[in-house]
Amino acid sequence: MSQPGTLFVVSAHAADFVWRAGGAIALHRSQGWKVRVLCLSFGERGESARLWKDGKSLEEIKAIRRAEAEQAAAILGADIRFFDVGDYPIDVTPELRDGLVQEIRAHRPDVILTHTFLDPYNADHPRTAELVREARILAQAHGYPSEHPPIGAPQLYSFEPHQPEQCQFRIDLLLDITSVFDKKRQAMECMQAQEHLWAYYTDVAKRRGVQAGRNSGQPIVYAEAYQRVFPSVGGAFV
Amino acid sequence: MSQPGTLFVVSAHAADFVWRAGGAIALHRSQGWKVRVLCLSFGERGESARLWKDGKSLEEIKAIRRAEAEQAAAILGADIRFFDVGDYPIDVTPELRDGLVQEIRAHRPDVILTHTFLDPYNADHPRTAELVREARILAQAHGYPSEHPPIGAPQLYSFEPHQPEQCQFRIDLLLDITSVFDKKRQAMECMQAQEHLWAYYTDVAKRRGVQAGRNSGQPIVYAEAYQRVFPSVGGAFV
Amino acid sequence: MSQPGTLFVVSAHAADFVWRAGGAIALHRSQGWKVRVLCLSFGERGESARLWKDGKSLEEIKAIRRAEAEQAAAILGADIRFFDVGDYPIDVTPELRDGLVQEIRAHRPDVILTHTFLDPYNADHPRTAELVREARILAQAHGYPSEHPPIGAPQLYSFEPHQPEQCQFRIDLLLDITSVFDKKRQAMECMQAQEHLWAYYTDVAKRRGVQAGRNSGQPIVYAEAYQRVFPSVGGAFV
Amino acid sequence: MSQPGTLFVVSAHAADFVWRAGGAIALHRSQGWKVRVLCLSFGERGESARLWKDGKSLEEIKAIRRAEAEQAAAILGADIRFFDVGDYPIDVTPELRDGLVQEIRAHRPDVILTHTFLDPYNADHPRTAELVREARILAQAHGYPSEHPPIGAPQLYSFEPHQPEQCQFRIDLLLDITSVFDKKRQAMECMQAQEHLWAYYTDVAKRRGVQAGRNSGQPIVYAEAYQRVFPSVGGAFV
Amino acid sequence: MSQPGTLFVVSAHAADFVWRAGGAIALHRSQGWKVRVLCLSFGERGESARLWKDGKSLEEIKAIRRAEAEQAAAILGADIRFFDVGDYPIDVTPELRDGLVQEIRAHRPDVILTHTFLDPYNADHPRTAELVREARILAQAHGYPSEHPPIGAPQLYSFEPHQPEQCQFRIDLLLDITSVFDKKRQAMECMQAQEHLWAYYTDVAKRRGVQAGRNSGQPIVYAEAYQRVFPSVGGAFV
Amino acid sequence: MSQPGTLFVVSAHAADFVWRAGGAIALHRSQGWKVRVLCLSFGERGESARLWKDGKSLEEIKAIRRAEAEQAAAILGADIRFFDVGDYPIDVTPELRDGLVQEIRAHRPDVILTHTFLDPYNADHPRTAELVREARILAQAHGYPSEHPPIGAPQLYSFEPHQPEQCQFRIDLLLDITSVFDKKRQAMECMQAQEHLWAYYTDVAKRRGVQAGRNSGQPIVYAEAYQRVFPSVGGAFV
Repeated sequence: MSQPGTLFVVSAHAADFVWRAGGAIALHRSQGWKVRVLCLSFGERGESARLWKDGKSLEEIKAIRRAEAEQAAAILGADIRFFDVGDYPIDVTPELRDGLVQEIRAHRPDVILTHTFLDPYNADHPRTAELVREARILAQAHGYPSEHPPIGAPQLYSFEPHQPEQCQFRIDLLLDITSVFDKKRQAMECMQAQEHLWAYYTDVAKRRGVQAGRNSGQPIVYAEAYQRVFPSVGGAFV
Repeated sequence: MSQPGTLFVVSAHAADFVWRAGGAIALHRSQGWKVRVLCLSFGERGESARLWKDGKSLEEIKAIRRAEAEQAAAILGADIRFFDVGDYPIDVTPELRDGLVQEIRAHRPDVILTHTFLDPYNADHPRTAELVREARILAQAHGYPSEHPPIGAPQLYSFEPHQPEQCQFRIDLLLDITSVFDKKRQAMECMQAQEHLWAYYTDVAKRRGVQAGRNSGQPIVYAEAYQRVFPSVGGAFV
Repeated sequence: MSQPGTLFVVSAHAADFVWRAGGAIALHRSQGWKVRVLCLSFGERGESARLWKDGKSLEEIKAIRRAEAEQAAAILGADIRFFDVGDYPIDVTPELRDGLVQEIRAHRPDVILTHTFLDPYNADHPRTAELVREARILAQAHGYPSEHPPIGAPQLYSFEPHQPEQCQFRIDLLLDITSVFDKKRQAMECMQAQEHLWAYYTDVAKRRGVQAGRNSGQPIVYAEAYQRVFPSVGGAFV
Repeated sequence: MSQPGTLFVVSAHAADFVWRAGGAIALHRSQGWKVRVLCLSFGERGESARLWKDGKSLEEIKAIRRAEAEQAAAILGADIRFFDVGDYPIDVTPELRDGLVQEIRAHRPDVILTHTFLDPYNADHPRTAELVREARILAQAHGYPSEHPPIGAPQLYSFEPHQPEQCQFRIDLLLDITSVFDKKRQAMECMQAQEHLWAYYTDVAKRRGVQAGRNSGQPIVYAEAYQRVFPSVGGAFV
Repeated sequence: MSQPGTLFVVSAHAADFVWRAGGAIALHRSQGWKVRVLCLSFGERGESARLWKDGKSLEEIKAIRRAEAEQAAAILGADIRFFDVGDYPIDVTPELRDGLVQEIRAHRPDVILTHTFLDPYNADHPRTAELVREARILAQAHGYPSEHPPIGAPQLYSFEPHQPEQCQFRIDLLLDITSVFDKKRQAMECMQAQEHLWAYYTDVAKRRGVQAGRNSGQPIVYAEAYQRVFPSVGGAFV
Repeated sequence: MSQPGTLFVVSAHAADFVWRAGGAIALHRSQGWKVRVLCLSFGERGESARLWKDGKSLEEIKAIRRAEAEQAAAILGADIRFFDVGDYPIDVTPELRDGLVQEIRAHRPDVILTHTFLDPYNADHPRTAELVREARILAQAHGYPSEHPPIGAPQLYSFEPHQPEQCQFRIDLLLDITSVFDKKRQAMECMQAQEHLWAYYTDVAKRRGVQAGRNSGQPIVYAEAYQRVFPSVGGAFV
């Protein structure tokens, strides 16, 4: 994949793309890729505990979360779109499904990142993963109605969930994000209401960095972990 | 992995490397890699049915199988070494284990290919896979006695077994061998006593080629399937 | 968990809680716990074959099943509520989901028991399990609308299905119900139309009792088997 | 199963039953079974790429696909019914579910064939498999409304998906279709728009035939692979 | 398998074949099969607790266990051979492995029954299963030294372990042993020192009988459960 | 388990018990338990890279590692015994196996901690786990020769490996070690040659602490993760 391409990140809630794929976004931007983040919701009900405790209204919370996510996306260099379908639960409607298909058709991503297909701690995450997997299939079909032509076969990755061992998360790729980690940290710091997670996900990145070093024999400080959904195809071992 | 490196193929029996990894060998040779094949046995007892039916002696069979394997390796462009430890069963001794460690220390492969860790049809194959996995670990240890220094962290792949669905074989990589398939076919044809397998493994390569095309959107005719043992580490999605 | 708490049992059909968790209910009642059983349906279509053969009407069957379940719950010492959403199939509506969330919010259970997430013999059971898992998550969210405050992290267990080996049922806990087995037997005998199951589930309890004895070195006569969904957390090995 | 019985094949799209179960259909017909094929859709959007490229309209494509499927069914000797619910996606409605239950009640199949429960390349296939599994359960329930009586316990098999290793497909049965392969080939050739698949699925059948030979010690040329959902029950090892 | 064949049962300890496969033995004898039981040990150390508590010596225990097993085999109608290699642990030597290969070569079984490949409660059982699987492979090899010719491809089954859910035991076949259960019960009663298991394994057979009824729609009272190692091959669904 | 008991920790190499179970040791000591650590080797070859780089001899390294491990055990309050069987590889001999059985017989642990059964990065770890599982079984057998009587059924746990996602590690228990973490840190600091791991395993403990908090709703700072091998047995949900 020597040519810069397009990276899609589909995030159930507004901040998921930062904690779980912020490094990947910054890294691919630094290599000239276009990156587009799709947030299905703002995480307004399920992932904004502090704002609720502070007495904010639903609309205030959505506005705050939107602003934070936009700021983080800007730091990472990504476009961002909010579907605003509500969360906890995210209900998958035909309109949402079609919306995602049309996005994929219009932007033709080379790689798509999203959640895992199993997560006993979060029902929106696996539902989003299944939605993305199906939207990609529909986008490939010649007969699916759209003004854009069918796509090829973009690779699909799950990013790391909060408790990977309980989600049958298997690591297929450790992505070296050392060179862009400062950007990920900055983006994380946009999430004012979740300050306790800044250090937490810095530690996760360090731990994955150590493992990346052990698996490659290279000096790597920070990494992100990904699971591949489809086989990779290529002309050399990687 | 832009620089040519060294590829190891550890084969329980003399012909396994041809059917299962002949394309990978030829392909990496064509990219300037060094390739070294290690055959633990000649497959003299377990995989030479026709020669036994023809009334050959054990020594004759070993000589024939050696000659065929050497010829195939030459066509593919690989060095080859025979450990000649006997087959059906291959018994893993401390000497064999150490021999493999010293090979890995001396040649420092970047990638190692071998069998799957489960195969209900063949006891030598998973035993070889476990041996290789352990030898790689021992070769990494600073305190393991050797005249060669410890190695880094070469990637380890399982090549495709005969009945993949019964071996829990999951495809992580479809390697495009279209450009070198004629060499693989020539190498297969060195195996005079197993003529029925020439067409069989040509068909397998075609089927994997179709799947490689579907998974990549590229036109690919022939492919080989591989399962990765360790996460890959890198600076981009692949 | 030295203090008595609250136990929830969510049962797809009226009698499931008796066969599968009757011992747990009686045991925890005997330790001072409050127990609340939620039956989504009466099992009127799917698990009342004899009543249909006897020519009863749908309303008669529902009335009979309700009476039996109430009687069994009374013997075991549990409160019981019927959602009466119909069975075969149970269709999960937003109203049912919200009803379950409000129940969990209002009663704040420490432990919730329900079905397994896989069961090829019964579509209502895994659907109920997924509903319960999601309702528990929603009940934790600060932004979920309710007059009751969000809950903590109750443990969730699957009770034993009819054919555990086909449901990927793994036993995490064998609960010693010897001291209350007579109550479970009495409760089972309330199910007049399923007399053939009284002996069957007595045998299951005995078999699990023998296994509990082997796994603990204690003399145990009757037990029930459970699979845990989340890790347990504590200050000692158990 | 010495007496001829009834075989059901539930196919998400019009041609699936040919590629995946055409041999089973012809074989059981040759043994006196009745075979009924249920196509939920024509595969008009998702599996008719060439017809779309040729500029056909949706209605034309449906008509062409219907005609081809009817012709193939006739060659194989099967009845065929089209539910015409649309594809990509197939949306499972209560009406479709009930339609399938009534079919099963009315025809009382001994064996049902359908798709796998997992397929990352196709969302309609696993959805169909779950629908069939549930419809079979509902058809067994005495209280399910129908003019036909409840059924017994027909066996349910998944036929082979396109990329079995990515679908956790485990082979439980290799069905020897050598004696009827010419009919399967003829039926495949009815699919004018998918000529590239004729050779592909001939090769698959040959490969499964070789494996069937290895697993049985019998000379078998062509086979189809199946995964069983429920245990088989019988009076001898098979 | 309409013709009577030969059934092998390989039992790690003297009594395993009775509890776990006694019904299969009697059933196949009643159908004219030859049955041969191979006991690797007498279970003298690991499965004779009561005899040790009674103060018997090792030699006395072996004699008692041998006599019981011979009596049980006679009731079931099977030949029996004891390898007497000692138990807890059974150490797999090249001599034992070869002994098993020669047995398989000499008697050419059509079906082989043995333990599961995983059992956290017993180390001898999985070790025996692996030994049997490898001996079957070696017996197939033309080059393996023997006075008997190579065999074909007998099916291999695991019989049910004591705690199936902890052994990843999946039921592929429920064998109807109703017609011969009295013989199994008589054979169990030969095991004087394990009287507590008579009722236990009668209950297991009843429970499997109920499940066999549910899975087939036939009235079945007693059954045994088996897991298949290789795909079955045949000319009809079963 | 209200009464203090005996905890065994079986460690393949000298320092494993500190990184992986140091908290459990200190915690149970603080509750009055007896703790005994068994180190099969000093990790002299495989886990002493810095000492080899510093030019130490094998004997010097063993002495250093022994001294460090003894000091760490003293801080944690545990007895320690070294089997000194060599590492990389640890070869399991009948003598080692018997030595472990006699230890278990003599000390009668209530709980045993050891490695995981799968670890592609380390061959000594799973080998040790299998050895411990078998030694526990042998220690239960009445006929196993020993001057000590047979044991009951101690629970067996795997502690967390370095790369849990690649070892199929599933978390069954998060042990709250907040109250004793300072002792674990002190013990870690005894390992002079592995200073880079002090911070690493402090971070792991913090991460597991956050997860323990989420899974329990309690404020927990540090935790260790464990996987249970056998079901737990008890009189209440935990």
